[in-house]
Amino acid sequence: MAKKEKKEPGISLISYNNKTVTEKQLSKAEEIFPFIASGSVTWIDIKGIEDPQVIEDIGRQFNLHPLLLEDISHSDQRPKIDNYGDYLFIIIKVIHHDKESDQFSNEQISLIFGKNFLISFQENEKDSFNPIRKKICSLNSRINKNGPDYLAYSLIDAIVDSYFAVFEILGEKIEEIEEKILTRPTPETVREMHFLKRKTILLKKSIWPLREVILSLERSGSPLIKKNTLIYMRDVYDHTIQMIDRVETSREILTSMLDVYLTGTSNRLTEAMKVLTMIGTIFIPLTFITGIYGMNFEFFPELGWKYGYFAVLGVMLLVSLGMIFYFKRKKWI
Amino acid sequence: MAKKEKKEPGISLISYNNKTVTEKQLSKAEEIFPFIASGSVTWIDIKGIEDPQVIEDIGRQFNLHPLLLEDISHSDQRPKIDNYGDYLFIIIKVIHHDKESDQFSNEQISLIFGKNFLISFQENEKDSFNPIRKKICSLNSRINKNGPDYLAYSLIDAIVDSYFAVFEILGEKIEEIEEKILTRPTPETVREMHFLKRKTILLKKSIWPLREVILSLERSGSPLIKKNTLIYMRDVYDHTIQMIDRVETSREILTSMLDVYLTGTSNRLTEAMKVLTMIGTIFIPLTFITGIYGMNFEFFPELGWKYGYFAVLGVMLLVSLGMIFYFKRKKWI
Amino acid sequence: MAKKEKKEPGISLISYNNKTVTEKQLSKAEEIFPFIASGSVTWIDIKGIEDPQVIEDIGRQFNLHPLLLEDISHSDQRPKIDNYGDYLFIIIKVIHHDKESDQFSNEQISLIFGKNFLISFQENEKDSFNPIRKKICSLNSRINKNGPDYLAYSLIDAIVDSYFAVFEILGEKIEEIEEKILTRPTPETVREMHFLKRKTILLKKSIWPLREVILSLERSGSPLIKKNTLIYMRDVYDHTIQMIDRVETSREILTSMLDVYLTGTSNRLTEAMKVLTMIGTIFIPLTFITGIYGMNFEFFPELGWKYGYFAVLGVMLLVSLGMIFYFKRKKWI
Amino acid sequence: MAKKEKKEPGISLISYNNKTVTEKQLSKAEEIFPFIASGSVTWIDIKGIEDPQVIEDIGRQFNLHPLLLEDISHSDQRPKIDNYGDYLFIIIKVIHHDKESDQFSNEQISLIFGKNFLISFQENEKDSFNPIRKKICSLNSRINKNGPDYLAYSLIDAIVDSYFAVFEILGEKIEEIEEKILTRPTPETVREMHFLKRKTILLKKSIWPLREVILSLERSGSPLIKKNTLIYMRDVYDHTIQMIDRVETSREILTSMLDVYLTGTSNRLTEAMKVLTMIGTIFIPLTFITGIYGMNFEFFPELGWKYGYFAVLGVMLLVSLGMIFYFKRKKWI
Amino acid sequence: MAKKEKKEPGISLISYNNKTVTEKQLSKAEEIFPFIASGSVTWIDIKGIEDPQVIEDIGRQFNLHPLLLEDISHSDQRPKIDNYGDYLFIIIKVIHHDKESDQFSNEQISLIFGKNFLISFQENEKDSFNPIRKKICSLNSRINKNGPDYLAYSLIDAIVDSYFAVFEILGEKIEEIEEKILTRPTPETVREMHFLKRKTILLKKSIWPLREVILSLERSGSPLIKKNTLIYMRDVYDHTIQMIDRVETSREILTSMLDVYLTGTSNRLTEAMKVLTMIGTIFIPLTFITGIYGMNFEFFPELGWKYGYFAVLGVMLLVSLGMIFYFKRKKWI
Repeated sequence: MAKKEKKEPGISLISYNNKTVTEKQLSKAEEIFPFIASGSVTWIDIKGIEDPQVIEDIGRQFNLHPLLLEDISHSDQRPKIDNYGDYLFIIIKVIHHDKESDQFSNEQISLIFGKNFLISFQENEKDSFNPIRKKICSLNSRINKNGPDYLAYSLIDAIVDSYFAVFEILGEKIEEIEEKILTRPTPETVREMHFLKRKTILLKKSIWPLREVILSLERSGSPLIKKNTLIYMRDVYDHTIQMIDRVETSREILTSMLDVYLTGTSNRLTEAMKVLTMIGTIFIPLTFITGIYGMNFEFFPELGWKYGYFAVLGVMLLVSLGMIFYFKRKKWI
Repeated sequence: MAKKEKKEPGISLISYNNKTVTEKQLSKAEEIFPFIASGSVTWIDIKGIEDPQVIEDIGRQFNLHPLLLEDISHSDQRPKIDNYGDYLFIIIKVIHHDKESDQFSNEQISLIFGKNFLISFQENEKDSFNPIRKKICSLNSRINKNGPDYLAYSLIDAIVDSYFAVFEILGEKIEEIEEKILTRPTPETVREMHFLKRKTILLKKSIWPLREVILSLERSGSPLIKKNTLIYMRDVYDHTIQMIDRVETSREILTSMLDVYLTGTSNRLTEAMKVLTMIGTIFIPLTFITGIYGMNFEFFPELGWKYGYFAVLGVMLLVSLGMIFYFKRKKWI
Repeated sequence: MAKKEKKEPGISLISYNNKTVTEKQLSKAEEIFPFIASGSVTWIDIKGIEDPQVIEDIGRQFNLHPLLLEDISHSDQRPKIDNYGDYLFIIIKVIHHDKESDQFSNEQISLIFGKNFLISFQENEKDSFNPIRKKICSLNSRINKNGPDYLAYSLIDAIVDSYFAVFEILGEKIEEIEEKILTRPTPETVREMHFLKRKTILLKKSIWPLREVILSLERSGSPLIKKNTLIYMRDVYDHTIQMIDRVETSREILTSMLDVYLTGTSNRLTEAMKVLTMIGTIFIPLTFITGIYGMNFEFFPELGWKYGYFAVLGVMLLVSLGMIFYFKRKKWI
Repeated sequence: MAKKEKKEPGISLISYNNKTVTEKQLSKAEEIFPFIASGSVTWIDIKGIEDPQVIEDIGRQFNLHPLLLEDISHSDQRPKIDNYGDYLFIIIKVIHHDKESDQFSNEQISLIFGKNFLISFQENEKDSFNPIRKKICSLNSRINKNGPDYLAYSLIDAIVDSYFAVFEILGEKIEEIEEKILTRPTPETVREMHFLKRKTILLKKSIWPLREVILSLERSGSPLIKKNTLIYMRDVYDHTIQMIDRVETSREILTSMLDVYLTGTSNRLTEAMKVLTMIGTIFIPLTFITGIYGMNFEFFPELGWKYGYFAVLGVMLLVSLGMIFYFKRKKWI
Repeated sequence: MAKKEKKEPGISLISYNNKTVTEKQLSKAEEIFPFIASGSVTWIDIKGIEDPQVIEDIGRQFNLHPLLLEDISHSDQRPKIDNYGDYLFIIIKVIHHDKESDQFSNEQISLIFGKNFLISFQENEKDSFNPIRKKICSLNSRINKNGPDYLAYSLIDAIVDSYFAVFEILGEKIEEIEEKILTRPTPETVREMHFLKRKTILLKKSIWPLREVILSLERSGSPLIKKNTLIYMRDVYDHTIQMIDRVETSREILTSMLDVYLTGTSNRLTEAMKVLTMIGTIFIPLTFITGIYGMNFEFFPELGWKYGYFAVLGVMLLVSLGMIFYFKRKKWI
């Protein structure tokens, strides 16, 4: 239908059905209208939420609630779903892992979908939805044969997959640290564990609401979601449950690893102490004996004895043997 | 409408609708009546709850339940909502942070709202509602276009925002302490953590009932809350959920930080012990050897040997090398 | 109505309505009957549960279930509420604090109330209900204007207030111990904390069922409880929730305090160890050096050197400076 | 009715109603039939579950489900209740305490009751039900006046009482250990605590399903349980709740006691360390000083000084006073 | 019916009813059709899920949902049950214990059953279902008399039994380690405990969804499951509850054992420290005294005293007795 191809950053539109696909970059929200009027499914994807004008224009065009528009432009929302009757509003977070800084970062995605349209707002420039766009353009994907509810499912599925990638990384790190703790732990390892635990806590806090959103979506009873799509939603829901299991497991294993570390430290301390105690307990009395015979008293009978020196050596030998026997009985050596 | 402007502390009244606003300071509760009779929304705001006469007068004027009046005048109530049919009664706590003493303090706010009025009692002189008053006077806010239920929402929203400010402060402190713990922890840091943990516990205890109140309000099914306002209530509710997430996260991170501190202390102890053990284990036997040759026995063959001294030095060197080798094998150095 | 004033311990009866009050000490359960027949509310209060005859007589008089009578006479019941249709049976515990022994003790209170009567059994001689008796006799309290359900509320309210008094004491003790822990903790403090924790555990275990009882009472749907009284029941319920919050907070603060104590002990140990390590590490090598030159070898070149003594002193100075430098780098001093 | 009195181990039968009781030992399951046909309540009690033939015969006689028969003969079942319509099947565990070995042991009891019969299987020879048998034979107990549902209640009540006896023993042991921990703890005490904790864990795991069984029984809505008996079931249920409270309390107190023990150990270690540190810190430098003047240098000016010896003694005094002052400031003495 | 016996790995088919059994190895999915058409129950068992063609063929043959086919071929699914109306789809994990490596491994089993067929997919070559196959071929098992729902129950029961075998092994290991910890614990024991805890965590994570699956199956209300089979499902459900109890108990006992280990280590450290402290505290002052009289001052009055030596010996005796008395009072010896 629409012909002009002028590239404008921001609003990208795909109108598709079973047979044809039209992809466009729009400069103004008003240009959307003719697409909606056609019978196809229209997906409007907006990158960046800094421009309030765009959000407002879209809002006016689709007659969206002002509270919803506010939520889109504030990127610190908790994932949630709001049913506005004519359309459903979903806020969800995609997770990215930056390899260089080894940090996880969140990006807020807002989805609004009605009878024959879906609007998505991506917080920043990274495009998480490119593979889906390509699928649609290939014309033979399941998305083309279904409505905007199935498109919504596809987008949410892509987002949930981003978490699995993060779990992969997390799992590897936990194994790495476990390896370290069991072989040669250092104080640095504890800090790494702390940061890992912190990441796990934050991850848990972002998966729980994700799970709730998908569950609410499944149970919303909205006529906008067809029965056929519900089975797919159930599948994504199962994935979030699986992730919650994993994150719980990670935390419990980290806790158990801290116990191993602490008992390890405690063991090394005890071992060091025993060595010192043994050396000290054997030599301190002996040194005392040498001290006695090092005194300079003028009247000191033993010093004159012929075998005094050897007698003292013998006494010292007996004392050390006694000590060693004592340690053996205490099972210290 | 009302003309007299005599300033009396205590009761301040705003009567507003879409087009006009009347603001007044009242001296007696009886003066409220004509405003209620008009079609506008009347907001009566009372500062201070020490004067039982005022509360009683208001109670008689609006025919309020005696138990409700008792609750208003006792500032140690737990946040709650009571549905009295003709009006809803809400107790809620606003939180203030005193920068000088670095303490958090609660202030009890009581809200009663009916078909066309809202009464608010603020425990002390701090005015948490000034921005809202200004908005109403500007005549073009959403409050002017809605009933007392929307006003109630606006007040609760302002109160919930006070908690977010507190979280901001808490978050900064936790980061500060984490920084300290990871670089140079002192026993003082643990005390700070204790006080922070205590604040977190108290904060958690005040957010949970807040959440319950807002949920009950949303689900009360009272005809006093219009469907339009419910969406806004849902929004505030989402904010409280977000706060509960944050407070939980704070507590878990604090717990993990205590672990880091404890393992740190334990590591430093072990390190100190190892140094002592090494020094002791090397020098105590050597000192014992010097002790032997410091004895004053008259018959002491070794002392006369020509290279006795150097032989002893050699033996001592061998002993220390043996010890160092032992430590190397134990991976202590 | 009733005229005889013969004082008998055990059964005391108050028959009241809006206008008149009759107070009596009864010797036999049979004397109750005429009061019940009148239209007034009759409150029978029995002190002591040792005399099975009294309980049995009352049971026959009011046609009570045998299981209920058994429950009254066993003072180790858990708080509960049983709905027998014609009457409600409530078991509840009042808490006393004995100042001298600093111990908390429970007293079991059983309440049975029907259409126009309330029977209360108090386990021992302490009278928890005197203030209420006085209120009724003053004739202008709210109790006089209401039925036995409101009287039941008043008694339960008095019992719940006894818990608040206990919380006051507990709160003070926790602050006292916190003060001790943060300034100069002793091993004794840990024992005090243990006893406090124990009290908190027991308190928690007695408040939870109290809360359940009041909730069941509120939700029982029994026609014996008028709608007007339900609002008051709700109020007592709110108080129990508040107490549960407090007891949870107390426990969490006690746990955090134990952490502070443990890290404190651990810090003091580490500090002591560092001092010993420093002293030992500096002087043990020095003492070894003096040991060398204290040996009595005949051939000992250094001893004859002119400045040998000063050279050794210099070496020892260098060794100690080296050690101090090492400690500085390790940040131990 | 039945005449033959031949004693056969295994099946014992009591047929009773309000007026007559017949007690018998049966050799074959077929002999039961005539009793069932009569209008009385028939209680068949089988001791020992090793003989599959007996269980099978009973099963055929009463037309019981094969799964039920399997459950009876496997003594590792979890307490449960199954409603088979015509009869209810209950598995429950009685607990025994063996005084000599100080061990708790479980015995599985299976109960099946229908309209006018109750079958009980006891796992081993200990007879937990003798007091009930005697009550029935006395003819004037409540059991005689009621149906098999009340008999089932009586048996379950006897079983629940066996737990209370165990709690009595557990409570005494906890107090004993608490006494030890607070006065003179030994490493052995921790092991005792471990075994006690283990018992508590196992006890908890057996009470929880017990509670569920009784709750299900109460709520089953089966016509086999008369309304009158439900009140008694409720009473047993209250007892199980009380036991759960107790077991939770025991565990929390044990945990708190472990904390006391650990802090005690930690305190004793710190105390020992301080003594060593003080002695070491005072005498190690002094010994070093004596070492200096014990060196044999030929040129050693101080040795020739007249009051050199006393000067050194003075210096040593000053050093020790300095150390003591330092310890006083550190609050170690 | 079918005649060709050509052995092909992969698809094995059993068609059975009350009277006849046909067992076959199929090469193509198309060969299944005639069996389904007959009135018997057909069980198709596929080993290995690598060949997508087989799964796809089966899917086309039985008209299965594409999502279901995807789930079968991904072996990292969480146990779940999906009701597709005409058939039920169950994913479940069987657990194997490899004796040599002492590792547990999971195998994913997918079950699909409809009105007269059951398809099972086993992830790898180990055949967990052989005993059931034999039972069917014996012709007189309960399976032959029932539909595919009972067959499904039998398979699930076999899978649940695999967990009990694992618990047996786990229980033995815990007892082994407990034995070690209470007699002669080593640092190695903590690592073993860590690995055991880890296994317990993973086991818990796989039993919980198993329990959910069986519960959902029981409550699905699907007409595919006959009322008769429900009783058996309930029985398997009871087994999973029992396993959850066991796994919880294991974890709590492991935690308690770690406490025993830690207090043991702490006790041994304290004991070692006390010995060192005693030896040090007695001999360090004595050695100091010997040091004094070993000094070489020219003017040293005591050295010339006749009984100086014996006086010093006496003083040293007194000092040590004083120290021993001090330790006795401290209850260290």
